[in-house]
Amino acid sequence: MEFTNPKDVKKPLSVKDVAAANGGEITIHGGIHNIRDMGEFSFVVLRLPDGICQCTVESSCDFGGESICEEACVEVTGTVREEKRAPGGYEVVVKKGKVLSKPAAAMPICINKHKITAALENEIPLRNITLRNGNYRTRFRIQSDIVKGFRDYLDSQGFVEIHTPKINAKAAEGGANVFKMEYFGKKAVLAQSPQFYKQAMVGVYERVYEVAPVFRAEKHNTARHLNEYISMDFEMGYIDSFEDIMAVETGMLKLVMDRIREKYQREISLMKLDIPIIDTIPHVKFKEAKELIQAEYGREIKDPYDLDPDEEQLIGRYFKEKYNSDFVFVTHYPSKKRPFYAMDDPEDPNYTLSFDLLFRGLEVTTGGQRIHDYDEQVAKIIRKKMNPEDFATYLNIHKHGMPPHGGLGIGLERLTMRLFNDDNIRYSSMFPRDMLRLVP
Amino acid sequence: MEFTNPKDVKKPLSVKDVAAANGGEITIHGGIHNIRDMGEFSFVVLRLPDGICQCTVESSCDFGGESICEEACVEVTGTVREEKRAPGGYEVVVKKGKVLSKPAAAMPICINKHKITAALENEIPLRNITLRNGNYRTRFRIQSDIVKGFRDYLDSQGFVEIHTPKINAKAAEGGANVFKMEYFGKKAVLAQSPQFYKQAMVGVYERVYEVAPVFRAEKHNTARHLNEYISMDFEMGYIDSFEDIMAVETGMLKLVMDRIREKYQREISLMKLDIPIIDTIPHVKFKEAKELIQAEYGREIKDPYDLDPDEEQLIGRYFKEKYNSDFVFVTHYPSKKRPFYAMDDPEDPNYTLSFDLLFRGLEVTTGGQRIHDYDEQVAKIIRKKMNPEDFATYLNIHKHGMPPHGGLGIGLERLTMRLFNDDNIRYSSMFPRDMLRLVP
Repeated sequence: MEFTNPKDVKKPLSVKDVAAANGGEITIHGGIHNIRDMGEFSFVVLRLPDGICQCTVESSCDFGGESICEEACVEVTGTVREEKRAPGGYEVVVKKGKVLSKPAAAMPICINKHKITAALENEIPLRNITLRNGNYRTRFRIQSDIVKGFRDYLDSQGFVEIHTPKINAKAAEGGANVFKMEYFGKKAVLAQSPQFYKQAMVGVYERVYEVAPVFRAEKHNTARHLNEYISMDFEMGYIDSFEDIMAVETGMLKLVMDRIREKYQREISLMKLDIPIIDTIPHVKFKEAKELIQAEYGREIKDPYDLDPDEEQLIGRYFKEKYNSDFVFVTHYPSKKRPFYAMDDPEDPNYTLSFDLLFRGLEVTTGGQRIHDYDEQVAKIIRKKMNPEDFATYLNIHKHGMPPHGGLGIGLERLTMRLFNDDNIRYSSMFPRDMLRLVP
Repeated sequence: MEFTNPKDVKKPLSVKDVAAANGGEITIHGGIHNIRDMGEFSFVVLRLPDGICQCTVESSCDFGGESICEEACVEVTGTVREEKRAPGGYEVVVKKGKVLSKPAAAMPICINKHKITAALENEIPLRNITLRNGNYRTRFRIQSDIVKGFRDYLDSQGFVEIHTPKINAKAAEGGANVFKMEYFGKKAVLAQSPQFYKQAMVGVYERVYEVAPVFRAEKHNTARHLNEYISMDFEMGYIDSFEDIMAVETGMLKLVMDRIREKYQREISLMKLDIPIIDTIPHVKFKEAKELIQAEYGREIKDPYDLDPDEEQLIGRYFKEKYNSDFVFVTHYPSKKRPFYAMDDPEDPNYTLSFDLLFRGLEVTTGGQRIHDYDEQVAKIIRKKMNPEDFATYLNIHKHGMPPHGGLGIGLERLTMRLFNDDNIRYSSMFPRDMLRLVP
């Protein structure tokens, strides 16, 4: 009988391993990102998992009788030497090579410059291959570290990860922005958020989180909307106020930003990124925020119940200018615009104990305290002209005891978008879903 | 201006903190899991995030004038003392208490015994509240540690986490088992797997993983099928053989099982769980496995192209009996039953370079090497009587260069189910989705 042994797992080699092998021999593999023919020899740049590695290949070098080309996958063996002009400061002088696979056609779009210059509408259909570009590779590595930081911070604060169903009988947020489907002869919808489930799980574990796709059938084809995105949700019990939730988010963002600043120094300088330093985050009431930007920028208050994107921009600008903060919590949103489970402010029930977080003037989080008392929740459902019977299953959690609790949802792609100061969210989703796009 | 400070995050108190406070005073909060009236005093058992804590409450104890009941949420202050008969070995002698919230009705089902005895069909509709049961709380904490172990192991091996869309234009696996929906006037389907996307991302990062829901419209209402489940997927490039993939899975499972055995000693003994010790995992060819159980158990070979659940059970039994292994890789599945992207075995193209992993006789993983060469992939699509034009976007990755690669998908709920030796997968999904269930 044969056995599989975990000791046989092969370590992938990174650009760090190349540097560590300086002066010695190394065997690495990768896709050929770029070839520059210099006559006697060529510069062959390989993609390693975490960066690129320059190799010098003499024209006489043997690749087992095969020719090499961009996007061929190869294995090369050679000597590592310092070379200031090479990315990362080292290059491999190749002695022998092996072609592992070859493309059937040349790239239809240039991906091996720093950034892809093609327009989004031409580039997105080719995402399957354009993601091999260096800018995208860094971006989505950083995105994976945002998610990892979110989880690590919450793990350290006693949160438990949960998985909740995305095919639901009813929409948590209500309204028309819901994708419908048939489920074995029944009507079903895709989850707009894990709201009802994460609340139920507060009754189980006190603190829970979930990172998962959510689906919004919004008919906005804007630069900041996706119809499917990754929502980083958490929910916590035994809070004294919704400010407990904001404190957790602040701590989480601080950890995420500090880690990215530390881990991606080279990439940050190359891409000229400005990773926010978070100490504290200012918070301001919705109503006051409107008044502040009216006083400061002469912005007229048109809709007292909602913030439009321009107002969010101005509020972001105000707190950057006055407090040098990239983030600001806007609190106490009007009850009219918040869902039925939002807890009203006892001091003024026209407002709720809720908040949004703006990052450089863009809403990246919505959160707040939820109603935990059964009678209070039933009354608010009726006040909102909905039928409590439609929410019987959800209301079971209130009926059978829930602690004071609240939580939030963070849009991963929006957070990424702002970190990279992009003008379009489609750069921050590997395979974006919008009104016009289902492919790739 | 006011500021939110991460230093204000409140640490939740666990049963460990109670033990650490032995002899001193502590304030804890939780839902009341159980009250036993002893006359002069009551045993009040609180649910803490990671377990339960016994409190003794004298009948004269003041809860701010309020009465307490099961599933009320309370805060209590008292002295910790050793008490061998209490869960965890300590109890809190309560001096004063505060009622934070009260249920509107008594529990419709008993959740505070070790395990819920109600039948699944009566219990699942109440999952929102039955998950407060101790058995469920342990189960889904362990499940969250399975996922964490999966990620931690793969992170340590240079894998990058990815997020891929669940609303797709086409089904990766093909066939009829796909949920259909309308997407802004276009036909769409829910992802059966991230297959096409994770393969594309091998061209980007070499090694990638995703933990996300997948959707299968299978019309089986069995004890081991869910129509929505969590798939733990990884895909890796530059493999020498599909055995490289099996080695990674073996290493990952070893880490997961070792961690669970270490972290949940008390719960494992309480629930009489048998957590497998993994050193190596035997592997056997599909054809040989059939022959082995024919010779050993007289099991007639009916369908030479597939394994039925009984055969999987017998193979599992064989490797338990002969090699004391809870796991066995069955390799080289017939090409007929594997998807069009599976690489055929060059030694016998009737079989593929693929595998399933059986855990105690249940398939928990399907994986294998994929075709990376463009012409080879186009030829196999045609051989399978499909149209390469339908896969033009997917085929872009092969056309523009892919390394030898492969990967697998692991069903989280099935892995959990086998770990707990359950007869029904619905115990291992918080909110199961089957043909009859969309709620809760």
